[in-house]
Amino acid sequence: MEFGSSYYTPKGKLVHLLKPTIYDFVMKSERKTQIIYPKDLGYIAARAGLQSGFKVLEVGTGSAALTTYFAALVKPDGHIFTYDVNEEFMEIAKKNLERAGLDRYVTMIKHLGNGYSEKDIDVAIIDLGDPWNVIPFVYTSLKSSGSVIAICPTMNQLEKTAYALENEGFTDIESSEIISRNIEARVGKTRPSMRMIGHTTYLIFARKILKPEAIN
Amino acid sequence: MEFGSSYYTPKGKLVHLLKPTIYDFVMKSERKTQIIYPKDLGYIAARAGLQSGFKVLEVGTGSAALTTYFAALVKPDGHIFTYDVNEEFMEIAKKNLERAGLDRYVTMIKHLGNGYSEKDIDVAIIDLGDPWNVIPFVYTSLKSSGSVIAICPTMNQLEKTAYALENEGFTDIESSEIISRNIEARVGKTRPSMRMIGHTTYLIFARKILKPEAIN
Amino acid sequence: MEFGSSYYTPKGKLVHLLKPTIYDFVMKSERKTQIIYPKDLGYIAARAGLQSGFKVLEVGTGSAALTTYFAALVKPDGHIFTYDVNEEFMEIAKKNLERAGLDRYVTMIKHLGNGYSEKDIDVAIIDLGDPWNVIPFVYTSLKSSGSVIAICPTMNQLEKTAYALENEGFTDIESSEIISRNIEARVGKTRPSMRMIGHTTYLIFARKILKPEAIN
Amino acid sequence: MEFGSSYYTPKGKLVHLLKPTIYDFVMKSERKTQIIYPKDLGYIAARAGLQSGFKVLEVGTGSAALTTYFAALVKPDGHIFTYDVNEEFMEIAKKNLERAGLDRYVTMIKHLGNGYSEKDIDVAIIDLGDPWNVIPFVYTSLKSSGSVIAICPTMNQLEKTAYALENEGFTDIESSEIISRNIEARVGKTRPSMRMIGHTTYLIFARKILKPEAIN
Repeated sequence: MEFGSSYYTPKGKLVHLLKPTIYDFVMKSERKTQIIYPKDLGYIAARAGLQSGFKVLEVGTGSAALTTYFAALVKPDGHIFTYDVNEEFMEIAKKNLERAGLDRYVTMIKHLGNGYSEKDIDVAIIDLGDPWNVIPFVYTSLKSSGSVIAICPTMNQLEKTAYALENEGFTDIESSEIISRNIEARVGKTRPSMRMIGHTTYLIFARKILKPEAIN
Repeated sequence: MEFGSSYYTPKGKLVHLLKPTIYDFVMKSERKTQIIYPKDLGYIAARAGLQSGFKVLEVGTGSAALTTYFAALVKPDGHIFTYDVNEEFMEIAKKNLERAGLDRYVTMIKHLGNGYSEKDIDVAIIDLGDPWNVIPFVYTSLKSSGSVIAICPTMNQLEKTAYALENEGFTDIESSEIISRNIEARVGKTRPSMRMIGHTTYLIFARKILKPEAIN
Repeated sequence: MEFGSSYYTPKGKLVHLLKPTIYDFVMKSERKTQIIYPKDLGYIAARAGLQSGFKVLEVGTGSAALTTYFAALVKPDGHIFTYDVNEEFMEIAKKNLERAGLDRYVTMIKHLGNGYSEKDIDVAIIDLGDPWNVIPFVYTSLKSSGSVIAICPTMNQLEKTAYALENEGFTDIESSEIISRNIEARVGKTRPSMRMIGHTTYLIFARKILKPEAIN
Repeated sequence: MEFGSSYYTPKGKLVHLLKPTIYDFVMKSERKTQIIYPKDLGYIAARAGLQSGFKVLEVGTGSAALTTYFAALVKPDGHIFTYDVNEEFMEIAKKNLERAGLDRYVTMIKHLGNGYSEKDIDVAIIDLGDPWNVIPFVYTSLKSSGSVIAICPTMNQLEKTAYALENEGFTDIESSEIISRNIEARVGKTRPSMRMIGHTTYLIFARKILKPEAIN
């Protein structure tokens, strides 16, 4: 059957056959970790100025939702280097990337925290509980004027990460939260949905500058 | 001077030299039209499942903010076909695309509304005042199970567009608004910013299915 | 036992004995209608400038949540005149008002729509599906420069009501929605709640002026 | 001229003569302090279950915006006891209360922090920079099962106040923020306003219980 075609099941239910998009792969991926929503994925990519061809460092692979989405954007010439230490997560992450056909654009490394061998990284994403601890190592891997974004579910993480970024050679530091609200658009009775996700995470963005001692 | 380096101006102001990202090109582009914010750009791309290599149809080029961002994602193998009739906008759009070095991935066509010659489009974006009027033509250009997203600043546009999508062979229709809120993360006194953008636009997403008469 | 005291149930659960507030009466009242939330109740009272001693007209009693709250504010010298036609609702409303000990401050009238016998009303609240239809009658009952607030769950109701208010001798017309978001404040991990109510209703406020023909 | 009447100024501008409501007194009051918005005022009253006749303790008079609103609700039999130490604020507060004709329902005390002579308070409001420091004294003044609400502009204040309430004999602790969004309701082009207030304050609510040692 062709994608886009519809049929009735034996029980009379109408089914549409849709080709999975990257959104579908991300949202329906197997996971043991907190989901990252499209509103956050999309904003991270847009705010960081991610482009096809970019070299990305990800600290905290989790179930590879973000990895999958970013691999689909940077291919065919870009690459994602992603770090995690949880073997169970890494197993799931590998499967999710293979299922989406994107594993060739991703290198998975079992290791966290004390330095990354990649250099000249365009965009770095930090998704672990203590982002402030890895910021000096992320700084070293980033190219000059490269972007970093950290995912901070709590206000306390956000505050500590902002402080670390300020002290580790970053500028343009900007914190925000992205809120998505569904609207029920129906003729004559349009209104927002009664239920919504109230919070997923705060996001903090910054750009690397050469350290103050380099100023002449 | 190297990107990332800093210097003091003769008046003693510290300046950081940053390489412009696609975000910077989009946000600082010349424009005569309503700005499209990264929160919306990012969500459109993520929700539509946009990937590097995709063929995109855009109805309503405006100042090419969205065109620029999408071109940076679909390159080097994808392409944007973008339609507008306002010559002044098109002139600005062309300059903005050239400045970002992305014009080779974009074909601009002066024409709106009654049919587009491209076929097998992966993702279509509609950004004009009456999205409902072009939906039948967008349907024809989209590949089966392809995605469409329309930008609807008012609830009335959203309602009419939802109705048109339902009646023109689309499924998975989902309306939402994306709200971005800045947080001032400062040690010991973190809180959201006092002022924010209250509204930019509603967004409506849908996927093409083969029309009901094709169901057997 | 004294209010405020605590005890362990036979099963070892700690229970606190609290005296019900008006909030508790409103939130735990029996109802067959959509709940009105404290965020909306409170804003209606504050925006309308409700005071103890005011004479209030309510069109659409429902389960008397709003009636109960307003009666607690206007007593002992003010009064609520509330209209509804649904006998089942009125029965529940009566019980809810009696339980809160506020029935003496409320007059319930079984009737809707074509005129109210009360005059010199300070604040009028409209809570029914077609607020625009009763606006001319509410106008007649209000004192000059009195306030009206209508509860409009959908954008379409809001739009029609705004139009009617503009055409029926009202000024200072202001539409808004009030959003309440719970915060989980816990040492070291404070963040907004994951789930929230995305929408309850839009509210529209206006004040009566003497009709244009009275301008000399 | 009668309230509600309209006239043209010599320059041809149409003016409506409206009787000031409590909302107008609050919003147009003279002030040297941060404004408290109706969305917050209204929610505080509704969540605390404030009623006409209540005895209220306010710690931090400021410009008396909250004092004015609450006095208008608790009169004629209730009373507000309000504490502040800033003489300039107290002078302004006194003028604002007199202008609204509500000074007889309010007792102003120049003093903060180390104990309040009033007992059996129904509702206490704390509006100062370090709410956690006065919570033990507020506890003593409140009647059993009485309500307290603290105004906390930052997340850090909210976190510390939540912690203090938990440790000082309060239950039903609930933190929230109230967001107000204006809607431009115009026939055929209804949408939220482009600009909005992104944040005013967090609010934390709790109820007094007899201390654990009282449990038998």
